[in-house]
Amino acid sequence: MRGEGLVTIDWGTTNRRIFLLDAQGAVVHREADALGVTAVPPGGFPNEMARLRERFGNVPFLLAGMIGSSRGWVEAPYVRCPVTFETLRESLLWVEPRQTAIVPGACVDAQRADVMRGEEVQLFGAVAAGLVAPDALLCLPGTHTKWARIVDGALIDFRTVMAGEMFALLRNHSLLAPQLSCEVVDGEAFRDGVRRGLDDGALLSDLFGTRASILLDRLDPADAASYVSGLLLGADLRIGLHRAPSGPVGLIGDPALTRLFGAALDEAGYTHQEVDGERAFLAGMAIIAEGLR
Amino acid sequence: MRGEGLVTIDWGTTNRRIFLLDAQGAVVHREADALGVTAVPPGGFPNEMARLRERFGNVPFLLAGMIGSSRGWVEAPYVRCPVTFETLRESLLWVEPRQTAIVPGACVDAQRADVMRGEEVQLFGAVAAGLVAPDALLCLPGTHTKWARIVDGALIDFRTVMAGEMFALLRNHSLLAPQLSCEVVDGEAFRDGVRRGLDDGALLSDLFGTRASILLDRLDPADAASYVSGLLLGADLRIGLHRAPSGPVGLIGDPALTRLFGAALDEAGYTHQEVDGERAFLAGMAIIAEGLR
Repeated sequence: MRGEGLVTIDWGTTNRRIFLLDAQGAVVHREADALGVTAVPPGGFPNEMARLRERFGNVPFLLAGMIGSSRGWVEAPYVRCPVTFETLRESLLWVEPRQTAIVPGACVDAQRADVMRGEEVQLFGAVAAGLVAPDALLCLPGTHTKWARIVDGALIDFRTVMAGEMFALLRNHSLLAPQLSCEVVDGEAFRDGVRRGLDDGALLSDLFGTRASILLDRLDPADAASYVSGLLLGADLRIGLHRAPSGPVGLIGDPALTRLFGAALDEAGYTHQEVDGERAFLAGMAIIAEGLR
Repeated sequence: MRGEGLVTIDWGTTNRRIFLLDAQGAVVHREADALGVTAVPPGGFPNEMARLRERFGNVPFLLAGMIGSSRGWVEAPYVRCPVTFETLRESLLWVEPRQTAIVPGACVDAQRADVMRGEEVQLFGAVAAGLVAPDALLCLPGTHTKWARIVDGALIDFRTVMAGEMFALLRNHSLLAPQLSCEVVDGEAFRDGVRRGLDDGALLSDLFGTRASILLDRLDPADAASYVSGLLLGADLRIGLHRAPSGPVGLIGDPALTRLFGAALDEAGYTHQEVDGERAFLAGMAIIAEGLR
Protein backbone atom coordinates (compact mmCIF):
# COMPACT_ATOMS: atom_id res chain seq x y z
CA MET A 1 0.00 0.00 0.00
CA ARG A 2 1.27 3.43 -0.85
CA GLY A 3 1.56 6.39 1.44
CA GLU A 4 -1.62 8.19 0.38
CA GLY A 5 -3.73 7.22 3.36
CA LEU A 6 -5.86 4.25 4.26
CA VAL A 7 -9.45 3.26 5.00
CA THR A 8 -9.87 0.64 7.73
CA ILE A 9 -13.21 -0.99 8.43
CA ASP A 10 -14.19 -3.03 11.46
CA TRP A 11 -16.93 -4.92 9.64
CA GLY A 12 -18.99 -7.02 11.99
CA THR A 13 -22.15 -9.09 11.77
CA THR A 14 -24.64 -6.30 12.45
CA ASN A 15 -22.57 -3.10 12.46
CA ARG A 16 -19.50 -1.61 10.91
CA ARG A 17 -17.14 1.20 11.81
CA ILE A 18 -15.20 3.04 9.11
CA PHE A 19 -12.03 5.10 9.66
CA LEU A 20 -10.24 7.21 7.06
CA LEU A 21 -6.58 7.73 8.01
CA ASP A 22 -4.23 10.27 6.44
CA ALA A 23 -0.71 9.43 5.23
CA GLN A 24 0.58 9.96 8.77
CA GLY A 25 -1.94 7.50 10.21
CA ALA A 26 -4.14 10.12 11.90
CA VAL A 27 -7.90 9.58 11.78
CA VAL A 28 -9.41 12.29 9.57
CA HIS A 29 -12.92 10.85 9.38
CA ARG A 30 -14.89 8.21 11.25
CA GLU A 31 -18.39 6.83 10.93
CA ALA A 32 -20.48 3.90 12.07
CA ASP A 33 -23.62 2.35 10.62
CA ALA A 34 -25.78 -0.78 10.73
CA LEU A 35 -24.50 -2.16 7.42
CA GLY A 36 -23.02 -5.28 9.00
CA VAL A 37 -22.36 -8.29 6.75
CA THR A 38 -25.87 -9.65 7.26
CA ALA A 39 -27.35 -6.37 5.95
CA VAL A 40 -25.54 -6.70 2.63
CA PRO A 41 -27.38 -8.98 0.15
CA PRO A 42 -25.53 -12.08 -1.12
CA GLY A 43 -23.14 -11.06 -3.88
CA GLY A 44 -23.59 -7.40 -2.96
CA PHE A 45 -20.12 -6.68 -1.58
CA PRO A 46 -18.39 -5.53 -4.82
CA ASN A 47 -21.17 -2.96 -5.29
CA GLU A 48 -20.95 -1.88 -1.67
CA MET A 49 -17.19 -1.53 -2.09
CA ALA A 50 -17.58 0.58 -5.25
CA ARG A 51 -19.93 2.85 -3.31
CA LEU A 52 -17.30 3.26 -0.57
CA ARG A 53 -14.56 4.01 -3.12
CA GLU A 54 -16.70 6.70 -4.67
CA ARG A 55 -16.83 8.37 -1.28
CA PHE A 56 -13.30 7.78 0.00
CA GLY A 57 -11.27 7.78 -3.20
CA ASN A 58 -8.66 5.40 -4.53
CA VAL A 59 -6.91 4.56 -1.25
CA PRO A 60 -6.16 1.07 0.08
CA PHE A 61 -8.95 -0.53 2.13
CA LEU A 62 -8.12 -2.86 4.99
CA LEU A 63 -11.11 -4.83 6.34
CA ALA A 64 -11.38 -6.94 9.47
CA GLY A 65 -14.10 -8.92 11.23
CA MET A 66 -16.99 -11.01 9.95
CA ILE A 67 -16.47 -9.59 6.44
CA GLY A 68 -13.94 -12.45 6.14
CA SER A 69 -16.39 -15.15 7.29
CA SER A 70 -18.59 -17.48 5.25
CA ARG A 71 -21.42 -14.95 5.72
CA GLY A 72 -19.18 -12.11 4.55
CA TRP A 73 -17.58 -11.19 1.22
CA VAL A 74 -14.91 -13.85 0.78
CA GLU A 75 -13.90 -16.39 3.41
CA ALA A 76 -10.40 -15.63 4.72
CA PRO A 77 -8.96 -18.85 6.23
CA TYR A 78 -8.13 -18.60 9.94
CA VAL A 79 -4.46 -18.32 10.91
CA ARG A 80 -3.54 -20.90 13.52
CA CYS A 81 -2.08 -19.90 16.91
CA PRO A 82 0.60 -18.87 17.69
CA VAL A 83 -0.15 -15.76 15.58
CA THR A 84 1.99 -12.62 15.22
CA PHE A 85 1.16 -9.42 13.37
CA GLU A 86 3.67 -10.55 10.73
CA THR A 87 1.70 -13.78 10.23
CA LEU A 88 -1.48 -11.79 9.85
CA ARG A 89 0.14 -9.45 7.37
CA GLU A 90 1.47 -12.37 5.30
CA SER A 91 -1.96 -14.00 5.35
CA LEU A 92 -3.97 -11.00 4.19
CA LEU A 93 -6.60 -11.98 1.65
CA TRP A 94 -6.50 -9.56 -1.30
CA VAL A 95 -10.03 -9.40 -2.64
CA GLU A 96 -9.14 -6.56 -5.01
CA PRO A 97 -5.45 -6.71 -6.01
CA ARG A 98 -3.35 -4.04 -4.27
CA GLN A 99 -6.56 -2.23 -3.32
CA THR A 100 -8.64 -4.13 -0.80
CA ALA A 101 -7.49 -6.74 1.70
CA ILE A 102 -9.24 -8.71 4.45
CA VAL A 103 -7.40 -9.50 7.68
CA PRO A 104 -7.84 -13.23 8.43
CA GLY A 105 -9.17 -14.41 11.77
CA ALA A 106 -7.22 -16.55 14.20
CA CYS A 107 -7.93 -20.06 15.41
CA VAL A 108 -6.93 -22.60 18.01
CA ASP A 109 -6.86 -26.02 16.38
CA ALA A 110 -5.26 -28.28 18.98
CA GLN A 111 -6.84 -30.30 21.77
CA ARG A 112 -9.56 -27.65 21.74
CA ALA A 113 -10.99 -25.67 18.84
CA ASP A 114 -11.66 -21.94 18.92
CA VAL A 115 -12.02 -19.08 16.46
CA MET A 116 -11.99 -15.27 16.38
CA ARG A 117 -12.49 -12.65 13.66
CA GLY A 118 -11.66 -9.00 14.24
CA GLU A 119 -10.50 -9.25 17.84
CA GLU A 120 -7.01 -10.27 16.67
CA VAL A 121 -6.51 -6.74 15.30
CA GLN A 122 -7.30 -5.20 18.70
CA LEU A 123 -5.00 -7.62 20.50
CA PHE A 124 -1.96 -6.77 18.38
CA GLY A 125 -2.87 -3.11 18.40
CA ALA A 126 -3.04 -3.02 22.19
CA VAL A 127 0.49 -4.42 22.38
CA ALA A 128 1.84 -2.32 19.48
CA ALA A 129 0.51 0.90 20.98
CA GLY A 130 1.98 0.00 24.35
CA LEU A 131 -1.47 -0.12 25.94
CA VAL A 132 -0.62 -3.50 27.50
CA ALA A 133 2.61 -5.38 28.18
CA PRO A 134 3.94 -7.79 25.51
CA ASP A 135 3.15 -10.59 27.99
CA ALA A 136 -0.45 -10.25 29.08
CA LEU A 137 -3.83 -11.82 29.51
CA LEU A 138 -6.43 -9.81 27.62
CA CYS A 139 -10.17 -10.09 28.03
CA LEU A 140 -12.75 -8.80 25.54
CA PRO A 141 -16.16 -9.09 27.23
CA GLY A 142 -19.25 -9.38 25.06
CA THR A 143 -21.87 -11.80 23.81
CA HIS A 144 -18.93 -14.16 23.50
CA THR A 145 -16.07 -13.19 25.81
CA LYS A 146 -12.61 -13.70 24.35
CA TRP A 147 -9.68 -14.45 26.67
CA ALA A 148 -6.34 -14.11 24.89
CA ARG A 149 -2.88 -15.05 26.10
CA ILE A 150 -0.17 -12.81 24.64
CA VAL A 151 3.45 -13.94 25.09
CA ASP A 152 6.31 -11.87 23.75
CA GLY A 153 3.85 -10.01 21.54
CA ALA A 154 2.42 -13.20 19.97
CA LEU A 155 -1.11 -14.54 20.42
CA ILE A 156 -0.38 -18.04 21.64
CA ASP A 157 -3.80 -19.21 22.82
CA PHE A 158 -7.31 -17.94 23.38
CA ARG A 159 -10.65 -19.11 24.64
CA THR A 160 -14.21 -18.00 23.89
CA VAL A 161 -16.84 -18.15 26.63
CA MET A 162 -20.49 -17.66 25.72
CA ALA A 163 -21.50 -16.15 29.06
CA GLY A 164 -23.10 -13.05 27.54
CA GLU A 165 -25.24 -15.03 25.13
CA MET A 166 -26.20 -17.37 27.97
CA PHE A 167 -27.42 -14.44 30.05
CA ALA A 168 -29.53 -13.24 27.11
CA LEU A 169 -30.98 -16.75 26.59
CA LEU A 170 -31.86 -17.02 30.28
CA ARG A 171 -33.31 -13.53 30.44
CA ASN A 172 -35.42 -13.86 27.31
CA HIS A 173 -36.45 -17.50 27.07
CA SER A 174 -35.83 -19.55 30.21
CA LEU A 175 -37.82 -20.57 33.25
CA LEU A 176 -35.85 -17.85 35.08
CA ALA A 177 -36.86 -15.13 32.60
CA PRO A 178 -39.59 -13.52 34.76
CA GLN A 179 -37.04 -13.05 37.53
CA LEU A 180 -34.29 -11.57 35.34
CA SER A 181 -35.85 -8.35 34.07
CA CYS A 182 -34.18 -6.07 36.64
CA GLU A 183 -31.01 -4.12 35.93
CA VAL A 184 -27.66 -5.75 36.71
CA VAL A 185 -25.68 -3.76 39.25
CA ASP A 186 -22.38 -4.35 41.03
CA GLY A 187 -23.52 -5.01 44.60
CA GLU A 188 -23.70 -7.75 47.17
CA ALA A 189 -25.88 -10.09 45.06
CA PHE A 190 -23.61 -9.69 42.03
CA ARG A 191 -20.50 -10.40 44.12
CA ASP A 192 -22.16 -13.44 45.78
CA GLY A 193 -22.84 -14.77 42.30
CA VAL A 194 -19.27 -14.12 41.16
CA ARG A 195 -17.83 -15.98 44.15
CA ARG A 196 -20.06 -18.98 43.59
CA GLY A 197 -19.41 -19.00 39.84
CA LEU A 198 -15.66 -18.85 40.42
CA ASP A 199 -15.79 -21.51 43.05
CA ASP A 200 -17.65 -24.65 42.19
CA GLY A 201 -17.96 -25.12 38.44
CA ALA A 202 -21.58 -26.25 38.87
CA LEU A 203 -23.22 -23.51 36.82
CA LEU A 204 -26.20 -25.54 35.59
CA SER A 205 -27.10 -26.33 39.18
CA ASP A 206 -26.36 -22.85 40.55
CA LEU A 207 -28.71 -21.34 37.96
CA PHE A 208 -31.60 -23.47 39.21
CA GLY A 209 -30.50 -22.60 42.74
CA THR A 210 -31.40 -18.99 41.95
CA ARG A 211 -35.02 -19.98 41.51
CA ALA A 212 -34.90 -22.11 44.66
CA SER A 213 -33.36 -19.22 46.61
CA ILE A 214 -36.23 -16.95 45.59
CA LEU A 215 -38.86 -19.58 46.52
CA LEU A 216 -37.17 -20.06 49.91
CA ASP A 217 -36.97 -16.28 50.54
CA ARG A 218 -33.18 -16.30 50.54
CA LEU A 219 -32.85 -14.00 47.52
CA ASP A 220 -34.78 -10.82 46.79
CA PRO A 221 -36.24 -11.15 43.25
CA ALA A 222 -34.97 -7.60 42.59
CA ASP A 223 -31.41 -8.97 43.01
CA ALA A 224 -31.85 -12.05 40.84
CA ALA A 225 -30.54 -10.54 37.59
CA SER A 226 -27.42 -9.22 39.35
CA TYR A 227 -26.86 -12.59 41.04
CA VAL A 228 -27.25 -14.58 37.81
CA SER A 229 -25.02 -12.13 35.93
CA GLY A 230 -22.46 -12.62 38.73
CA LEU A 231 -22.74 -16.41 38.45
CA LEU A 232 -22.11 -16.26 34.70
CA LEU A 233 -19.23 -13.80 34.99
CA GLY A 234 -17.74 -15.95 37.76
CA ALA A 235 -17.99 -19.00 35.48
CA ASP A 236 -16.51 -16.91 32.66
CA LEU A 237 -13.54 -15.84 34.80
CA ARG A 238 -13.08 -19.37 36.14
CA ILE A 239 -12.39 -20.46 32.56
CA GLY A 240 -10.50 -17.37 31.43
CA LEU A 241 -8.24 -17.11 34.46
CA HIS A 242 -7.25 -20.78 34.39
CA ARG A 243 -3.45 -20.78 34.84
CA ALA A 244 -3.44 -17.01 34.34
CA PRO A 245 -0.27 -14.99 34.94
CA SER A 246 -0.26 -12.68 37.93
CA GLY A 247 -0.14 -9.33 36.10
CA PRO A 248 -3.14 -7.08 35.48
CA VAL A 249 -5.75 -8.34 33.04
CA GLY A 250 -6.29 -6.03 30.07
CA LEU A 251 -9.99 -5.32 29.51
CA ILE A 252 -11.08 -4.16 26.06
CA GLY A 253 -14.66 -3.22 25.29
CA ASP A 254 -17.86 -1.40 26.12
CA PRO A 255 -17.41 0.44 29.47
CA ALA A 256 -20.75 -0.87 30.85
CA LEU A 257 -19.44 -4.42 30.46
CA THR A 258 -15.82 -3.84 31.38
CA ARG A 259 -16.98 -2.20 34.62
CA LEU A 260 -18.78 -5.40 35.65
CA PHE A 261 -15.85 -7.54 34.54
CA GLY A 262 -13.49 -5.29 36.49
CA ALA A 263 -15.61 -5.80 39.62
CA ALA A 264 -15.64 -9.56 39.05
CA LEU A 265 -11.86 -9.62 38.54
CA ASP A 266 -11.48 -7.67 41.75
CA GLU A 267 -13.57 -10.32 43.53
CA ALA A 268 -11.27 -12.98 42.02
CA GLY A 269 -8.21 -11.18 43.39
CA TYR A 270 -6.97 -9.83 40.05
CA THR A 271 -6.16 -6.28 39.05
CA HIS A 272 -7.08 -5.00 35.61
CA GLN A 273 -6.43 -2.14 33.23
CA GLU A 274 -8.98 -0.76 30.80
CA VAL A 275 -7.83 -0.60 27.20
CA ASP A 276 -9.50 1.70 24.65
CA GLY A 277 -10.88 -0.66 22.01
CA GLU A 278 -10.95 1.84 19.15
CA ARG A 279 -7.39 2.94 19.81
CA ALA A 280 -6.29 -0.71 19.93
CA PHE A 281 -8.11 -1.45 16.67
CA LEU A 282 -6.57 1.52 14.86
CA ALA A 283 -3.09 0.71 16.14
CA GLY A 284 -3.55 -2.91 15.03
CA MET A 285 -4.66 -1.93 11.54
CA ALA A 286 -1.79 0.56 11.31
CA ILE A 287 0.85 -2.03 12.17
CA ILE A 288 -0.61 -4.55 9.72
CA ALA A 289 -0.74 -1.89 6.98
CA GLU A 290 2.75 -0.57 7.73
CA GLY A 291 4.66 -3.40 6.12
CA LEU A 292 2.62 -2.98 2.98
CA ARG A 293 3.47 0.60 2.15
CA MET B 1 -57.96 -42.29 55.48
CA ARG B 2 -60.28 -45.28 55.60
CA GLY B 3 -59.88 -48.54 53.75
CA GLU B 4 -62.29 -47.84 50.91
CA GLY B 5 -59.68 -47.08 48.28
CA LEU B 6 -57.75 -44.02 47.22
CA VAL B 7 -57.26 -41.64 44.32
CA THR B 8 -53.69 -40.43 43.80
CA ILE B 9 -52.86 -37.69 41.35
CA ASP B 10 -49.45 -36.74 40.03
CA TRP B 11 -50.47 -33.15 39.22
CA GLY B 12 -47.77 -31.34 37.31
CA THR B 13 -47.44 -27.99 35.55
CA THR B 14 -48.81 -29.05 32.16
CA ASN B 15 -50.10 -32.62 32.70
CA ARG B 16 -51.61 -34.80 35.35
CA ARG B 17 -51.93 -38.53 35.85
CA ILE B 18 -54.79 -39.96 37.91
CA PHE B 19 -54.84 -43.42 39.54
CA LEU B 20 -57.78 -45.02 41.35
CA LEU B 21 -56.59 -47.68 43.77
CA ASP B 22 -58.81 -50.30 45.45
CA ALA B 23 -58.73 -51.07 49.19
CA GLN B 24 -55.80 -53.47 48.59
CA GLY B 25 -53.80 -50.76 46.79
CA ALA B 26 -54.16 -52.24 43.30
CA VAL B 27 -54.68 -49.80 40.41
CA VAL B 28 -58.21 -50.29 39.09
CA HIS B 29 -58.26 -47.25 36.79
CA ARG B 30 -55.67 -44.87 35.37
CA GLU B 31 -55.87 -41.85 33.09
CA ALA B 32 -53.74 -38.92 31.99
CA ASP B 33 -54.70 -35.54 30.56
CA ALA B 34 -53.34 -32.06 29.90
CA LEU B 35 -55.13 -30.45 32.86
CA GLY B 36 -51.91 -29.42 34.60
CA VAL B 37 -52.07 -26.64 37.17
CA THR B 38 -51.57 -23.92 34.56
CA ALA B 39 -54.65 -25.17 32.66
CA VAL B 40 -56.92 -24.64 35.67
CA PRO B 41 -58.10 -21.03 36.02
CA PRO B 42 -57.19 -19.16 39.25
CA GLY B 43 -59.59 -20.18 42.00
CA GLY B 44 -60.83 -23.08 39.88
CA PHE B 45 -59.42 -25.97 41.92
CA PRO B 46 -62.43 -26.55 44.26
CA ASN B 47 -64.67 -26.88 41.20
CA GLU B 48 -62.20 -29.15 39.46
CA MET B 49 -62.02 -31.25 42.64
CA ALA B 50 -65.84 -31.49 42.84
CA ARG B 51 -65.84 -32.71 39.24
CA LEU B 52 -63.31 -35.42 40.13
CA ARG B 53 -65.33 -36.49 43.18
CA GLU B 54 -68.45 -36.87 41.08
CA ARG B 55 -66.54 -39.32 38.92
CA PHE B 56 -64.50 -41.20 41.52
CA GLY B 57 -66.79 -41.09 44.57
CA ASN B 58 -66.18 -40.16 48.16
CA VAL B 59 -62.68 -41.66 48.56
CA PRO B 60 -59.59 -39.89 49.91
CA PHE B 61 -57.57 -37.95 47.34
CA LEU B 62 -53.80 -37.66 47.69
CA LEU B 63 -52.19 -35.08 45.38
CA ALA B 64 -48.53 -34.48 44.62
CA GLY B 65 -46.51 -32.20 42.39
CA MET B 66 -47.00 -28.59 41.31
CA ILE B 67 -50.56 -28.64 42.67
CA GLY B 68 -48.84 -27.67 45.96
CA SER B 69 -46.91 -24.75 44.44
CA SER B 70 -47.77 -21.06 44.33
CA ARG B 71 -49.24 -21.65 40.87
CA GLY B 72 -51.31 -24.59 42.14
CA TRP B 73 -54.27 -24.93 44.51
CA VAL B 74 -52.74 -24.13 47.90
CA GLU B 75 -49.04 -23.69 48.59
CA ALA B 76 -47.70 -26.59 50.67
CA PRO B 77 -44.49 -25.47 52.40
CA TYR B 78 -41.37 -27.46 51.46
CA VAL B 79 -40.08 -29.98 53.99
CA ARG B 80 -36.40 -29.48 54.65
CA CYS B 81 -33.82 -32.25 54.07
CA PRO B 82 -33.24 -34.76 55.58
CA VAL B 83 -36.76 -35.94 54.69
CA THR B 84 -38.33 -39.34 55.43
CA PHE B 85 -41.71 -40.65 54.32
CA GLU B 86 -42.88 -40.15 57.91
CA THR B 87 -41.93 -36.46 57.70
CA LEU B 88 -43.87 -36.14 54.46
CA ARG B 89 -46.86 -37.87 56.01
CA GLU B 90 -46.80 -35.57 59.04
CA SER B 91 -46.52 -32.53 56.79
CA LEU B 92 -49.44 -33.34 54.49
CA LEU B 93 -51.50 -30.27 53.73
CA TRP B 94 -55.21 -31.08 54.15
CA VAL B 95 -57.03 -28.82 51.71
CA GLU B 96 -60.34 -30.58 52.38
CA PRO B 97 -60.42 -32.05 55.92
CA ARG B 98 -60.02 -35.86 55.94
CA GLN B 99 -60.75 -35.88 52.22
CA THR B 100 -58.02 -34.28 50.15
CA ALA B 101 -54.36 -33.81 51.01
CA ILE B 102 -51.36 -32.41 49.15
CA VAL B 103 -47.93 -33.97 49.62
CA PRO B 104 -45.44 -31.17 50.33
CA GLY B 105 -42.28 -30.78 48.27
CA ALA B 106 -38.77 -31.09 49.67
CA CYS B 107 -36.06 -28.48 49.89
CA VAL B 108 -32.37 -28.04 50.58
CA ASP B 109 -31.90 -24.86 52.60
CA ALA B 110 -28.26 -24.95 53.71
CA GLN B 111 -25.16 -23.61 51.96
CA ARG B 112 -27.07 -24.18 48.74
CA ALA B 113 -30.78 -23.86 48.03
CA ASP B 114 -32.80 -26.38 46.04
CA VAL B 115 -36.42 -27.46 45.70
CA MET B 116 -38.49 -30.34 44.32
CA ARG B 117 -42.22 -31.07 44.08
CA GLY B 118 -43.51 -34.50 43.16
CA GLU B 119 -40.19 -36.28 42.72
CA GLU B 120 -39.99 -36.91 46.48
CA VAL B 121 -42.90 -39.37 46.15
CA GLN B 122 -41.04 -41.37 43.51
CA LEU B 123 -37.85 -41.41 45.56
CA PHE B 124 -39.51 -42.88 48.66
CA GLY B 125 -41.59 -45.20 46.54
CA ALA B 126 -38.52 -46.58 44.78
CA VAL B 127 -36.98 -47.44 48.14
CA ALA B 128 -40.26 -48.71 49.71
CA ALA B 129 -40.96 -51.00 46.77
CA GLY B 130 -37.40 -52.36 46.93
CA LEU B 131 -36.65 -51.02 43.43
CA VAL B 132 -33.42 -49.47 44.75
CA ALA B 133 -31.29 -50.01 47.84
CA PRO B 134 -31.99 -47.87 50.98
CA ASP B 135 -28.60 -46.24 50.32
CA ALA B 136 -28.52 -45.00 46.75
CA LEU B 137 -27.95 -42.17 44.35
CA LEU B 138 -31.04 -41.63 42.24
CA CYS B 139 -31.21 -39.58 39.06
CA LEU B 140 -34.43 -38.29 37.47
CA PRO B 141 -33.48 -36.90 34.05
CA GLY B 142 -35.69 -34.25 32.50
CA THR B 143 -35.90 -30.54 31.76
CA HIS B 144 -34.39 -30.16 35.20
CA THR B 145 -32.48 -33.28 36.25
CA LYS B 146 -32.82 -34.18 39.93
CA TRP B 147 -29.96 -36.01 41.66
CA ALA B 148 -31.02 -37.37 45.05
CA ARG B 149 -28.91 -38.96 47.77
CA ILE B 150 -30.82 -41.54 49.81
CA VAL B 151 -29.17 -42.76 53.02
CA ASP B 152 -30.88 -45.38 55.18
CA GLY B 153 -34.13 -44.65 53.38
CA ALA B 154 -34.01 -40.88 54.02
CA LEU B 155 -33.56 -38.14 51.41
CA ILE B 156 -30.56 -36.33 52.82
CA ASP B 157 -29.60 -34.07 49.92
CA PHE B 158 -30.44 -33.38 46.30
CA ARG B 159 -29.37 -31.20 43.44
CA THR B 160 -31.20 -29.88 40.39
CA VAL B 161 -29.31 -29.40 37.13
CA MET B 162 -30.98 -27.51 34.30
CA ALA B 163 -29.19 -29.36 31.51
CA GLY B 164 -32.37 -30.32 29.66
CA GLU B 165 -33.70 -26.77 29.62
CA MET B 166 -30.27 -25.54 28.53
CA PHE B 167 -30.30 -27.91 25.56
CA ALA B 168 -33.75 -26.62 24.58
CA LEU B 169 -32.58 -22.98 24.90
CA LEU B 170 -29.53 -23.68 22.75
CA ARG B 171 -31.51 -25.64 20.17
CA ASN B 172 -34.30 -23.10 19.84
CA HIS B 173 -32.75 -19.69 20.44
CA SER B 174 -28.95 -19.63 20.42
CA LEU B 175 -26.25 -18.95 17.89
CA LEU B 176 -25.82 -22.73 17.76
CA ALA B 177 -29.50 -23.35 16.93
CA PRO B 178 -29.04 -23.92 13.17
CA GLN B 179 -26.53 -26.69 13.97
CA LEU B 180 -28.65 -28.45 16.59
CA SER B 181 -31.67 -29.60 14.62
CA CYS B 182 -30.46 -33.17 14.09
CA GLU B 183 -31.51 -36.07 16.30
CA VAL B 184 -29.41 -36.89 19.35
CA VAL B 185 -27.99 -40.41 19.20
CA ASP B 186 -25.62 -42.35 21.43
CA GLY B 187 -22.51 -42.58 19.25
CA GLU B 188 -18.96 -41.35 19.05
CA ALA B 189 -19.86 -37.62 19.00
CA PHE B 190 -22.19 -38.00 21.98
CA ARG B 191 -19.52 -39.89 23.96
CA ASP B 192 -16.84 -37.32 23.02
CA GLY B 193 -19.15 -34.64 24.39
CA VAL B 194 -19.80 -36.59 27.59
CA ARG B 195 -16.08 -37.06 28.24
CA ARG B 196 -15.36 -33.38 27.73
CA GLY B 197 -18.35 -32.32 29.84
CA LEU B 198 -17.27 -34.62 32.66
CA ASP B 199 -13.70 -33.51 32.44
CA ASP B 200 -13.09 -29.80 32.45
CA GLY B 201 -16.01 -27.87 33.92
CA ALA B 202 -15.70 -25.28 31.15
CA LEU B 203 -19.15 -25.75 29.63
CA LEU B 204 -19.61 -22.15 28.42
CA SER B 205 -16.37 -22.42 26.48
CA ASP B 206 -16.95 -25.97 25.23
CA LEU B 207 -20.31 -24.91 23.78
CA PHE B 208 -18.65 -22.23 21.66
CA GLY B 209 -15.98 -24.81 20.80
CA THR B 210 -18.72 -26.79 19.03
CA ARG B 211 -19.19 -23.95 16.58
CA ALA B 212 -15.43 -23.56 16.16
CA SER B 213 -15.07 -27.32 15.55
CA ILE B 214 -17.62 -27.15 12.75
CA LEU B 215 -15.92 -24.10 11.18
CA LEU B 216 -12.55 -25.89 11.33
CA ASP B 217 -14.00 -29.12 9.84
CA ARG B 218 -13.33 -31.10 12.99
CA LEU B 219 -16.98 -31.89 13.67
CA ASP B 220 -19.62 -33.02 11.17
CA PRO B 221 -22.64 -30.68 11.54
CA ALA B 222 -24.85 -33.80 11.55
CA ASP B 223 -23.14 -34.81 14.82
CA ALA B 224 -23.40 -31.41 16.53
CA ALA B 225 -26.66 -32.06 18.39
CA SER B 226 -25.34 -35.35 19.77
CA TYR B 227 -22.05 -33.72 20.78
CA VAL B 228 -23.75 -30.79 22.54
CA SER B 229 -26.21 -33.13 24.25
CA GLY B 230 -23.19 -35.15 25.39
CA LEU B 231 -21.45 -32.00 26.68
CA LEU B 232 -24.53 -31.06 28.71
CA LEU B 233 -25.08 -34.57 30.06
CA GLY B 234 -21.39 -34.73 30.95
CA ALA B 235 -21.71 -31.43 32.82
CA ASP B 236 -24.90 -32.75 34.44
CA LEU B 237 -23.15 -35.94 35.62
CA ARG B 238 -20.10 -34.00 36.76
CA ILE B 239 -22.37 -32.18 39.21
CA GLY B 240 -24.61 -35.12 40.10
CA LEU B 241 -21.83 -37.65 40.62
CA HIS B 242 -19.77 -35.34 42.84
CA ARG B 243 -18.74 -37.53 45.81
CA ALA B 244 -21.13 -40.23 44.60
CA PRO B 245 -21.11 -43.67 46.24
CA SER B 246 -19.84 -46.54 44.11
CA GLY B 247 -23.12 -48.49 43.74
CA PRO B 248 -25.36 -48.37 40.68
CA VAL B 249 -27.20 -45.12 40.00
CA GLY B 250 -30.97 -45.51 39.94
CA LEU B 251 -32.47 -43.87 36.83
CA ILE B 252 -36.14 -42.90 36.93
CA GLY B 253 -37.90 -41.44 33.92
CA ASP B 254 -38.76 -41.45 30.25
CA PRO B 255 -36.87 -44.34 28.54
CA ALA B 256 -35.64 -42.09 25.69
CA LEU B 257 -33.86 -39.92 28.26
CA THR B 258 -32.74 -42.63 30.67
CA ARG B 259 -31.12 -44.48 27.74
CA LEU B 260 -28.90 -41.44 27.01
CA PHE B 261 -28.17 -40.94 30.71
CA GLY B 262 -27.32 -44.64 31.01
CA ALA B 263 -24.83 -44.30 28.15
CA ALA B 264 -23.32 -41.19 29.77
CA LEU B 265 -23.04 -42.97 33.13
CA ASP B 266 -21.32 -45.86 31.40
CA GLU B 267 -18.83 -43.38 29.90
CA ALA B 268 -18.27 -42.01 33.43
CA GLY B 269 -17.53 -45.52 34.74
CA TYR B 270 -20.81 -45.95 36.64
CA THR B 271 -23.37 -48.72 36.41
CA HIS B 272 -27.06 -47.94 36.59
CA GLN B 273 -30.42 -49.57 37.05
CA GLU B 274 -33.63 -48.36 35.43
CA VAL B 275 -36.50 -47.76 37.81
CA ASP B 276 -40.14 -47.70 36.65
CA GLY B 277 -41.32 -44.19 37.49
CA GLU B 278 -45.04 -44.99 37.68
CA ARG B 279 -44.43 -47.96 39.93
CA ALA B 280 -42.21 -45.80 42.16
CA PHE B 281 -44.86 -43.06 42.30
CA LEU B 282 -47.65 -45.47 43.22
CA ALA B 283 -45.53 -47.18 45.89
CA GLY B 284 -44.62 -43.76 47.30
CA MET B 285 -48.24 -42.62 47.47
CA ALA B 286 -49.22 -45.98 49.04
CA ILE B 287 -46.65 -45.69 51.81
CA ILE B 288 -47.63 -42.09 52.55
CA ALA B 289 -51.34 -43.03 52.60
CA GLU B 290 -50.76 -46.16 54.70
CA GLY B 291 -50.26 -44.41 58.00
CA LEU B 292 -53.46 -42.47 57.46
CA ARG B 293 -55.86 -45.38 57.24
